[in-house]
This record gives sequence, C-alpha cells and structure tokens, in this order.
Amino acid sequence: MRRFASDSAKRLLKRSFLAPQSSSCSSAAAAMTTTESSPAVTLDSINPKVLKCEYAVRGEIVSHAQRLQQDLKAKPGSHPFEEILYCNIGNPQSLSQQPITFFREVLALCDYPFLLDRDETHGLFSADAIERAWKILDVIPGRATGAYSHSQGIKGLRDTIAAGITSRDGYPSNADDIFLTDGASPAVHMMMQLLIRSEKDGILCPIPQYPLYSASIALHGGSLVPYYLDEASGWGLEISELEKQLEHARLNGITVRALVVINPGNPTGQVLAEENQRQIIEFCKKESLVLLADEVYQENVYVEDKKFNSFKKIARSLGYGDKDISLVSFQSISKGYYGECGKRGGYMELTGFSTDVREQIYKVASVNLCSNISGQILASLIMNPPKPGDESYDSFTAERDGILSSFARRAKTLEDAFNSLEGVTCNKAEGAMYLFPRIRLPEKAIEAAKAVNSAPDAFYARRLLDATGIVVVPGSGFGQVPGTWHIRSTILPQEDKIPAVVSRFKAFHESFMQEFRD
Amino acid sequence: MRRFASDSAKRLLKRSFLAPQSSSCSSAAAAMTTTESSPAVTLDSINPKVLKCEYAVRGEIVSHAQRLQQDLKAKPGSHPFEEILYCNIGNPQSLSQQPITFFREVLALCDYPFLLDRDETHGLFSADAIERAWKILDVIPGRATGAYSHSQGIKGLRDTIAAGITSRDGYPSNADDIFLTDGASPAVHMMMQLLIRSEKDGILCPIPQYPLYSASIALHGGSLVPYYLDEASGWGLEISELEKQLEHARLNGITVRALVVINPGNPTGQVLAEENQRQIIEFCKKESLVLLADEVYQENVYVEDKKFNSFKKIARSLGYGDKDISLVSFQSISKGYYGECGKRGGYMELTGFSTDVREQIYKVASVNLCSNISGQILASLIMNPPKPGDESYDSFTAERDGILSSFARRAKTLEDAFNSLEGVTCNKAEGAMYLFPRIRLPEKAIEAAKAVNSAPDAFYARRLLDATGIVVVPGSGFGQVPGTWHIRSTILPQEDKIPAVVSRFKAFHESFMQEFRD
Repeated sequence: MRRFASDSAKRLLKRSFLAPQSSSCSSAAAAMTTTESSPAVTLDSINPKVLKCEYAVRGEIVSHAQRLQQDLKAKPGSHPFEEILYCNIGNPQSLSQQPITFFREVLALCDYPFLLDRDETHGLFSADAIERAWKILDVIPGRATGAYSHSQGIKGLRDTIAAGITSRDGYPSNADDIFLTDGASPAVHMMMQLLIRSEKDGILCPIPQYPLYSASIALHGGSLVPYYLDEASGWGLEISELEKQLEHARLNGITVRALVVINPGNPTGQVLAEENQRQIIEFCKKESLVLLADEVYQENVYVEDKKFNSFKKIARSLGYGDKDISLVSFQSISKGYYGECGKRGGYMELTGFSTDVREQIYKVASVNLCSNISGQILASLIMNPPKPGDESYDSFTAERDGILSSFARRAKTLEDAFNSLEGVTCNKAEGAMYLFPRIRLPEKAIEAAKAVNSAPDAFYARRLLDATGIVVVPGSGFGQVPGTWHIRSTILPQEDKIPAVVSRFKAFHESFMQEFRD
Repeated sequence: MRRFASDSAKRLLKRSFLAPQSSSCSSAAAAMTTTESSPAVTLDSINPKVLKCEYAVRGEIVSHAQRLQQDLKAKPGSHPFEEILYCNIGNPQSLSQQPITFFREVLALCDYPFLLDRDETHGLFSADAIERAWKILDVIPGRATGAYSHSQGIKGLRDTIAAGITSRDGYPSNADDIFLTDGASPAVHMMMQLLIRSEKDGILCPIPQYPLYSASIALHGGSLVPYYLDEASGWGLEISELEKQLEHARLNGITVRALVVINPGNPTGQVLAEENQRQIIEFCKKESLVLLADEVYQENVYVEDKKFNSFKKIARSLGYGDKDISLVSFQSISKGYYGECGKRGGYMELTGFSTDVREQIYKVASVNLCSNISGQILASLIMNPPKPGDESYDSFTAERDGILSSFARRAKTLEDAFNSLEGVTCNKAEGAMYLFPRIRLPEKAIEAAKAVNSAPDAFYARRLLDATGIVVVPGSGFGQVPGTWHIRSTILPQEDKIPAVVSRFKAFHESFMQEFRD
C-alpha cells in the first residue's frame, strides 16, 4: 500500500509509527496529571490506516471542482467555462441519464403500497409494474418494506437474483449464496475485512485499478500486491505477470490471500477473453487464492467480438464446483444501463466457502442488520427485467438499448478524439464506462509539476479543469507503470455535449503542449 | 473485548495468536512447493477480529427461531405455538406497525417524479406531500434521485436536518457538520475506525450496552472499557464509576479515546437527567474524550417527568463550543415513531473536530461514495415533519401520537407483567423500545445451563422460545454485572397481542421455576 500513500500521509505515518505504544502511555499519563483539556482527536492520534487510505475518484481534484462550481454560481463568468463537467465518476444520472421507467414504477408502488388499491393507479402505472410490485410485496414478510430484512437480504428477492444468475450463466445459483449489500463497495470491504489479518496478508490487484481496492486494503491494514495490465496489448492480463508478482510477494513474506479481477475493466475498459478467464481460474485454484471478481460492468460491453462471461460460468464450465475454488462475484445497481448509483444496491455471490466461514460472513453482515430495501428491490429488478410479452417490454428495451448504444457511440468518439491528440494513445473501451488514455507529457511539464509538488498527470488534470471545467482523474490515482502518465475520463457526458467536450479538450491539450514543449 | 468472546472463538484466537507470522510464512512456502490446492479460506486463516466479534441481537437464538418458523410452515402444529414472535430486535414494521403516510407519499413521488406532472396524482397524494417532493427534488442536483450525492449527503437535505436540530435544541447546527449514513451503524463504525489504532485504544461503553458497540470495537481491534449502569437506581450512570473505570484502564496501559452514552438507553430504557448529562460533558472535557452520543431513541420518551435533551444542547448551555468538546450525535430513521428500519437512513452530527481530522472522515465517507438517497430523504423528513396548517398535519400527528402512546402503554403492561413474576424485577422503560428485566434463576437452572454449555440466561431464553415462540435476547449478549441474569424484550408486539404474550410468558416462567426450584 505504501506506493499509494501521499507524501503528507507518509510523514504523519512515520511519526505515528515511531513510537506507537510509548506515545499512548505518555499521553495517558499526561491526561491523568492535568485537569486542562487537550483536543480529543488530532491527525497524530487517529488510526494511521485511515491516513494511509486514498480515494482519488473523489480526491483533491473534485474538491477543487466543487470550489469552482461555487465560484460560477456566485459570479457567473468568473471562469472561462459555463459549467463543471464531472467526468471523474461513473454517475450517469448526475449527467442527465434518465432512470429506467419500469424500475421506478415498481419502486414507487412498493414505497407506497396504498396506491395498489386505487383505481387511478392503473392509469398511471404499467400493468406489469403493478403485478411486479404485488409479487415483491408478497415475498416481503408482512409486506413491510420498512422492516429490517434477513441479514443477507429478503429471501424471495435473493431467489429472483439467483434465478437471474442461473439464466445468465446456464449453471445453477443458490439464494443462500447471495448477500445483498448497499452497493458493491460495502461487499468489497466485507471480504477485505474477512481476509486481511495484518500487513503480511496481500491482495493481488490489477494496476491500474479502481481505487476502492487500494483504499479498502489500506483501511484493513493489508498489503496491495500489484500486477500490471499490459497497455500495449489492450490492457491484457498475463498469467506470467501474476506468477511473477505472487512469487515476489511470497519471497517478501507476504501471504497472498486473493486475486482481484475487474471485468469489464475499470479504469481500463477491456473485456477479458474466455481463454484468459480459464487461465485465471486455474491460477487461483492452483495457488489457493480467493478470486474476487468485480463484475459490476457486466451489462456494459460495446464491441461485437467480445461478450461478458461471469467467472462462475467459466469455472463451472471447467468442471470446478464449490470444493475447487472460492469465488466472489460483485454486482451493483449503479452501473449497466440502469445507473441507479444513489439507490445503493448490489450483491455478492459467494461460492466455495465452508459453512463455518460463511457463518462468520453472515455474522459481520448481521452487525449492520441489512442493506436498504429499495436497493434490494432494484437488485432483483436488474436481474429480472421485463420479458417479451410484458406490457413494459418494448419501452423497457428501447430505453435500455438507447442508453447502451449511446454509451458505445460516446466511447468511440472520445477514444478517436484522444488518439488524435499529440502524444496521446488510447486503447479501445470494449466495456465499462471509462477511457484511460496515456499522455506522453513533455519534460518541461513534468518539471513544472514537480515544482508545485504535484504528480505530472495530476498537474495536467488540474490545468485541464481550470481551462475547461472538465473533471478527470489523474492516472496516479489508479496506479500505472512508473514513468507513464494517464487520465481516466468517463464516457458519460450527454451525447449532444460530446462535440463541445472534444473541442474544449483538444484546444486545451494543444495549448498545454505548446506551453511546455521541450 | 475479550469478555465478549465465546469459548470457541477464544480457542481459535489462541491458535491464531500463537504463531501469526510463522504460520503465514510456512503456509506460503507450502503453497509454493505444491500444485495441490488447499482451501483458500478456513476459520483458522480469517481475520481473528472477525471471529472475536459477536452480535447477540441476531445470534444463535434468532437462527433457532428461524428454524422453528420453517418447521411451523412445513408442519403446522409441530410446536406448542402458532407463530414466532420476534421480540429480539427493534423492528416495529415487522410487527405490523404501519409507516407514516406522509413520509411514504413523499418517497414514492421522489422515486417516480413523473407522477408530479399528472392530474390523477392530486387525488392520490396530499398537497403538502406533493409540495415537499418538489422541494426535495429542487435541492437534488439535476433532480437526479438515482445519482451518487455529495459524500456527506445532499447539501439541501443536510440544511433541512441542521434546521431541525437548531429548532429542537435552540442552538445553531451547521449542514457541514452532518454526515448522512445508511442507518446509525455505519456511522458508529466510521468513528471506531477513526479512533482505534490498536488494542491499546479503549472506548468506554455502558454495560449493559447495545452490542453494535462491542462488535464494532472488536472488528476494529480496540478494547471495550466497560462502565456499569446501576440497576438499583433505575440504570443510573454514576460519574464515579466512569472515573474508576477510566483510571483502571489507564493503569493497564489503555488510552481511552471516547465515551459512548446511549440516551434513551438500549437495552435499559432509562432517560438521562439534565444534571447527569452536564456531569458527563464535564467529564469528557476534563479527560479529553470524544463523546459518542447514541441519540437514536430521542423521540421515544414515555414518562411525564423526563424529557430528551441532546448532549449538544446541554454542552452549548454550559457555554462549551467547538473548541471545548468533540461530540458526535447519532440519529436514525429506524426508531422513534417512524421505525423505517429497512430504509437504512440516519446521520451523525460532528462538532468539535479540527478541519484536518474532518477531512479524514470525509475521505472515509467518500470511499463508499454516499448513503442511499431514499434514506437521506427520510432523514430530512423525520427532522422536518408536517407543521400546523399543512394538509397532512392532523393525520400525521394522529399517526405519530397513536404509535407513541401505544408504545407507552405496551411498555407499562410488559413492565408490570415482568414485575409480577417470581424472582423477576424490571426497571421502568422511560424511553427507547426495550425492557431489560433481571431474572433470579434458581441454582438448579444455572447448573442445567452449565451442563449444556450455555449461559444461564441464554438457557432461559431458549426454553422460553421452545415453549412459547417468543424470541428475546439473553442479557449476556449486552453484558451485565457478573452473577446477574437478564433478558431484553422489545415492547413492540401489537397491542392486541400483548395479553396473550403476557399470559404465555407467565405460564412459561411459572413452569420453568417449578421445574428448577432449588
């Protein structure tokens, strides 16, 4: 994890680590002998794991963007742009994507079931939304959408999700293996909490990676063991690289517990080939690693020649069952074509864990009682959307396909735009919601960044924001091969805004390169 | 925390602690020299803090109740009762309490804003619910209820909550101090994560306590420093006891970071007197402790001579501001008269923390992106319910007062019933949702419990469940003075079921005492 710690955090950590026990004792002694109060909490006295944790997606650049937005509100015209365009985070509805109508109809009916008994409701809601709301209420004990549910989530909704997984994969899924969660993030934390005992426990993570993983590993006090994706081969995942990094970690006394794979990739957008997935499974099996499969972008695939396959499907197709491999698949209602980020829903499907370990996971889930019921309902809906013959089917597919095909067009336009820039190369976004172009920065720009104590890509991103109002995340927040520089941009600006985004970006880039040309 | 670890967990912990580093290395070495796979995760190789953690409210007794419920469904008549009555958890809507209509109207309209543009809506929803939904949508950027919000929650909703606190306390509250969360539990975890560096850091907790605290301290690897509430004086909180336990902990090398106070009390139901709150604040100020005030039962006060006062109000009334005391108040939408447990909403109000520490808390909140928007909306509604003159005001107050007065009657009936039993004494439930009667168990019952390796109160609770279908939590799950035995029962069974509950309980207790009489 040290590679992700900022300088200021490092300084503080050093101080805290120098005399952890003695400082506690002496401060305790001091407090006992004085009646003067001192601050109960200072940066020096908080958990150093919290200091260590970083999360660039909502980091410094976003705070700066929020300040600019306030400026613009207070003094329109105070900056050379009219609005801030948040391309830092996969948050589609914040950029005007409309929610899927059927999902929101069902949600509203479940929130206020009184509507189900009223005639007017039939004029306002589709017949299948009404029917679905009844079905959902019928599987909720007492129809109580305001009650804590089972700690893993409402059993009937887990049945629906398991049926959806079964139908997606062609291999059976069991409701008892599903844990509903408030989005994928708490599920990832839960697994890190289970697996990490100390900094001697390592988690293999792709570099670049979604910084939830580095943040969660830091918060739980483990070690991130990096494996590098190969940018030259379209962010390919090489087994030889996994083997090399695993061996290196073990030689350093690290017990590697799990392998994180993000497929489709974030921030890199690649979709793994089936053969590659088979190799990854064999690797985890051979090395007794838990496979943590981040599959939240499973609906976001934009190229004809690639297809999403769940790791569970591939494992089962190899003949591997519960006894052969421990596998966790994370899914979320925040991504796909639905983008219901603010509703905080998702699940993990856990297979290949012993009963006693499962009981421990259940216990940890119980401490937080349950995930939110609206999120649980939405998780069941995304895994069981309207079917042919349902009243909503046509409008639903039109909404879904409209969003997905627009994503594909936007990804292509932005990819082409990046590739047209001097010194910039950008792999294809086969899936997910991001592009991660590499920017070859002039030496002078690197020096200018150093002079203001900034990573060169953070310097570039800050200049971009100040000039255009476009917010992207510097590649250093995700990790990258040392000496290379990237940014991550979502593909989410509204389609009619894309030409303006592209031209603002191009103009900025040209002027930046002009200013710092070696 | 060791006092809460079960025997089996203790055994496992001992094993893990004996050779933590060497075992990692040897297992790593083993994995390197073999191609045979071994289980990736066993009970011996998970985080020992997870093993240590216990949460009785959803523990063994509840699992057993769920099995009995399945029995009853499969074979009606297979047990001497017709249904399981869950008195283990404060989950009112699971026991048929209806949600507040106004809150659900607003929620449905925000979930499906299309309704706001339709004429039929005026026949289905109250005018002030429609108006409120518009107001809420107007403070959500882009009216996007499906977008991630600011990491602390939507600013406009925090403004509403801050105004509600200001009006409740008569002292100003600031939206920047509010962090919206998925219920109070994640907020408590966040503070424990911030404060606990190692087992040398201690948190003063009441005994008996709500086991979220012991569980969270265990998960974060800290030490629970107990202070005992005085059952004889109605669960009084004595400052001399706090001082004694603080000194004791410090002599044992523990740095005490914070004091948890639950007011109104869980599981004990007492409401603190103002003078007592003043003493607690002076104590925290003098000893530089963060005051963690669990105020989730602030609307649940049932006696004429007591009144809820927030700790912030009392601190401000003593003239103490941000510079004098670090104070966190937890609030939840799950309790009060609303009981919206399944919606997972709540907030913490943080005052008296430096900017740099606040930034760290913000960062940790950011890693999980935001709490769910429905929960955020409900949190704003409970802090700003309908006002006189609003169309819903009369029906709202009727619903609210109906629930609260029924709680008061149920608490009194159950309290009287417990006090009428042989060997049982029960303090008044001045507030919250629980009774915590003390049961003087016969020596023979204690021996019978020992013979089946059970805590005596767990033995009693299990027998109660098997005989009556009533689920209560053994006092040992909350902590109690050694040698005393209690159970916690909610006051939540429907009012018309209370007489039957009482008579089933009485009949069981008499037969139990008969069976084990010394």
